[in-house]
Amino acid sequence: MSVTSAIEIQQKAIQVLQADADKILKLIEVQMKNLTMPQCPLYEEVLDTQMFGLSREIDFAVRLKLVQEDTGKRILQELERKLSELNQMYQEQTTQK
Amino acid sequence: MSVTSAIEIQQKAIQVLQADADKILKLIEVQMKNLTMPQCPLYEEVLDTQMFGLSREIDFAVRLKLVQEDTGKRILQELERKLSELNQMYQEQTTQK
Repeated sequence: MSVTSAIEIQQKAIQVLQADADKILKLIEVQMKNLTMPQCPLYEEVLDTQMFGLSREIDFAVRLKLVQEDTGKRILQELERKLSELNQMYQEQTTQK
Repeated sequence: MSVTSAIEIQQKAIQVLQADADKILKLIEVQMKNLTMPQCPLYEEVLDTQMFGLSREIDFAVRLKLVQEDTGKRILQELERKLSELNQMYQEQTTQK
């Protein structure tokens, strides 16, 4: 294992969490673009699973004091906001039909 | 955030992962003791979810170079072995009925 400073570990932790959050964000955006396709319940399952996985990573990082609790919450909240935006779009589409 | 050395973070990472693995182990053991109770599919779901959460924590720790890949695999494999032991016990019980 290479020697890394605590500061470097903290910086890397944020980078990794943000990268994982961005992956989920891409999934949500793809789903928003494909709204005309039949709604796929599996997609919701995938998003839920990914969100849970990320929340466990964040929780772990907070317990190791690599990331501040507020920072972790902010990352998750941003995704949750985007998710509810997606749900809103679904509902509007269903109402229009 | 308090200043911690990289070595301390690595030690803490192993401790936290092992503690989480132990929690899952306890869940499995409780289930083994209550084998006479009707099999609860929800329990399997809970165990699967917990295993997935732990695997994400381990993966995160490995990516941050806090834990060696082999160590992470060993923690998961130990739980998987215990889980298949539990499944074996279920099957034997079903056959006996």
